[in-house]
Amino acid sequence: MMSDDIPVIDPNAWREQFPITQKTVYMISNSLGAMPRSTRDNLNRYADIWEARGVRSWAEGWWVKQNDLAEHFSQILGVPASALSLHQNVTMASAVFASSLRFDSPRNKIVYTDMNFPTIMYLYDGIARQHGARVVRVESPDGIGVPTEKLLDAIDEETALVPISHVLFRSSFIQDAQTIVEKARRVGAIVVLDVYQSVGCIPLELHKWGVHAAVGGPLKFCCGGPGSCFLYVDPELCQELAPAYTGWMAHKQPFDFDTGPIDRREDGWRFLHGTPNVPGLFAAEEGVRICAEIGMEAVRKHSMKQTQLIWETAQELGLKSTAPENPEQRGGTIAIDAPHGYEVCQELLARDFIVDYRPKAGVRIAPHFYTLDEECVATVHQIRKILDSKAYEKHLGQEKRPG
Amino acid sequence: MMSDDIPVIDPNAWREQFPITQKTVYMISNSLGAMPRSTRDNLNRYADIWEARGVRSWAEGWWVKQNDLAEHFSQILGVPASALSLHQNVTMASAVFASSLRFDSPRNKIVYTDMNFPTIMYLYDGIARQHGARVVRVESPDGIGVPTEKLLDAIDEETALVPISHVLFRSSFIQDAQTIVEKARRVGAIVVLDVYQSVGCIPLELHKWGVHAAVGGPLKFCCGGPGSCFLYVDPELCQELAPAYTGWMAHKQPFDFDTGPIDRREDGWRFLHGTPNVPGLFAAEEGVRICAEIGMEAVRKHSMKQTQLIWETAQELGLKSTAPENPEQRGGTIAIDAPHGYEVCQELLARDFIVDYRPKAGVRIAPHFYTLDEECVATVHQIRKILDSKAYEKHLGQEKRPG
Repeated sequence: MMSDDIPVIDPNAWREQFPITQKTVYMISNSLGAMPRSTRDNLNRYADIWEARGVRSWAEGWWVKQNDLAEHFSQILGVPASALSLHQNVTMASAVFASSLRFDSPRNKIVYTDMNFPTIMYLYDGIARQHGARVVRVESPDGIGVPTEKLLDAIDEETALVPISHVLFRSSFIQDAQTIVEKARRVGAIVVLDVYQSVGCIPLELHKWGVHAAVGGPLKFCCGGPGSCFLYVDPELCQELAPAYTGWMAHKQPFDFDTGPIDRREDGWRFLHGTPNVPGLFAAEEGVRICAEIGMEAVRKHSMKQTQLIWETAQELGLKSTAPENPEQRGGTIAIDAPHGYEVCQELLARDFIVDYRPKAGVRIAPHFYTLDEECVATVHQIRKILDSKAYEKHLGQEKRPG
Repeated sequence: MMSDDIPVIDPNAWREQFPITQKTVYMISNSLGAMPRSTRDNLNRYADIWEARGVRSWAEGWWVKQNDLAEHFSQILGVPASALSLHQNVTMASAVFASSLRFDSPRNKIVYTDMNFPTIMYLYDGIARQHGARVVRVESPDGIGVPTEKLLDAIDEETALVPISHVLFRSSFIQDAQTIVEKARRVGAIVVLDVYQSVGCIPLELHKWGVHAAVGGPLKFCCGGPGSCFLYVDPELCQELAPAYTGWMAHKQPFDFDTGPIDRREDGWRFLHGTPNVPGLFAAEEGVRICAEIGMEAVRKHSMKQTQLIWETAQELGLKSTAPENPEQRGGTIAIDAPHGYEVCQELLARDFIVDYRPKAGVRIAPHFYTLDEECVATVHQIRKILDSKAYEKHLGQEKRPG
């Protein structure tokens, strides 16, 4: 789609449906997207069916409930819905996928960058130890991004797996997924792309890009909250893989309760395991549905306009950002690396400017389709005011809070 | 507690709080417990905080929300709450625990019985393949239970892991967990006890019994629905184990976003991984809280009276049960092995007698603290009527439904 053909989002058309936007300056959609009003109705639908239908709920929708969420996700990921499975979080989605791989010498390298979300590093370090695999960690020279060439050089014939982020959580730097996947395919390595920071904000064409597998979830820009992350596996690759961590949902005839060996499904359900997280699926559905309805081209256009506004306002006010300068290389977040960032963040929260803070990144600001331009400007000005007035000082020395 | 001191449950005191019991004969608490009315309020509390507080929800309760559910579970499991972690399902709870074990020859046997829930067999077959471990499957001679001696004989110095069910899902046979754990400890094997069919129905003293690890969930007798299963790990053993499948929630300082290696917590959180399933935790809480409040001694007393009533009524009406004859050896379920069991089950459901059907078990009937004696009798009579009138015939040849 050419830029001019992309619809312009009117944030005011969405704000009534996202109640927190009417009471706060909600600038943290890269961490926890605002809750759609209709999510409450969906949670009540979960209660309605359990309350009225009891165990019949399974036959009347629960058993296949993951397919509804998969359908919405498929539209914003550019993959067939049948290639998706839903899991509690990205860690476990990644773990299930990894349990289907081999790390036999000499192809036993796991190549990632030190800009990954830490949990992913903890996980693959554990997997490497378990399988005698080698971890190759490619380092960022500047804490913003990792030069693509440097990463490509590390991916070789001895590489089994490349688990990397599409958009880096600290800097919002967009990695060149397509080029990385091409190199991996050339040498026979498998890429697991973590799209947590891009899904719901940036157009994705995972199937077209040839991505082997991808993980992400509804928590952030998809406005679906915690509990239901997806694993995408390329349908062609899927058939060849047999996850060790499996269960009855992956069985072709689960209600035969056959004692084994497992007769595996051939679609994305091949990567399911035990009983699904039905309340989490109901909780996530509305946010993802709305994102798919709006369309990622429009969201990205709106996001790029507003992140640029944040960037420019920060420049004007003498605030440093750890995001890439080139808008094309930036995801949906601008982190402002203000002094006393954690304390500034606490003061912003107290003033109902909702943001978060990450070490080596700063105060993260992420507008979304329900964000007004003036909120972007006001948030940066508020940081300046808090710094100038030293209002952050009252938070110094306090115990750090989760979030 | 002596039997006479155990409070007698009045089911009528609970039925208003479990709406489905007022509209159906709800006899399937071993599969999906009835939803407490207050669960809906709790789901709305989840929506309230997300809607109003946004990302601040993490600091204001979400991050540690699993501890509330753990607290309720700890009371009915006989373990410290701090030794519990919550996971999507028993399969993944088991997988995370298994990822902390080694299966080095010669101690590389995984010993289980063919009466396990199939998903557990699929999982451990996969793990065995992954690690070159040997699966030793102890077979039931009668499809009801496995003689304890036979299982004990299979647990030897080459046994790494014994993943077994406390109460068997088909027959409701209670395995002698304490004796099995004693043998395992003597030879250095580790027991993972699946208490899914006993938790919420039978008094458990897992810590006192010396159980190494246990898995189970709120879905069944705990009336908590799907999404939030627990892993208990003996606090002494916990310190020695380093799960490969780990993540930031297992880190002592997760919000430092340290790039590794992971600095592991020393309590049950050591077995957590990625972002918690907050909606599932809210959904499960009320059922487990109510079970803990009633107390397992009272529930068991009520259950034994009613399962005996079902058993005797079945005998009277010439119906065969696959449950053990000795009430002390039976869990909370009586399965009636009627001819055309699946179709009989469908007709019972159509008549609002809510039960389920399992192959090699039959129509499963499980009363609970909200069940009236007359419902137990009526359900068995209904089976007799459906058989005698051949009303099941209309369901013959239909595609089998999940549930």
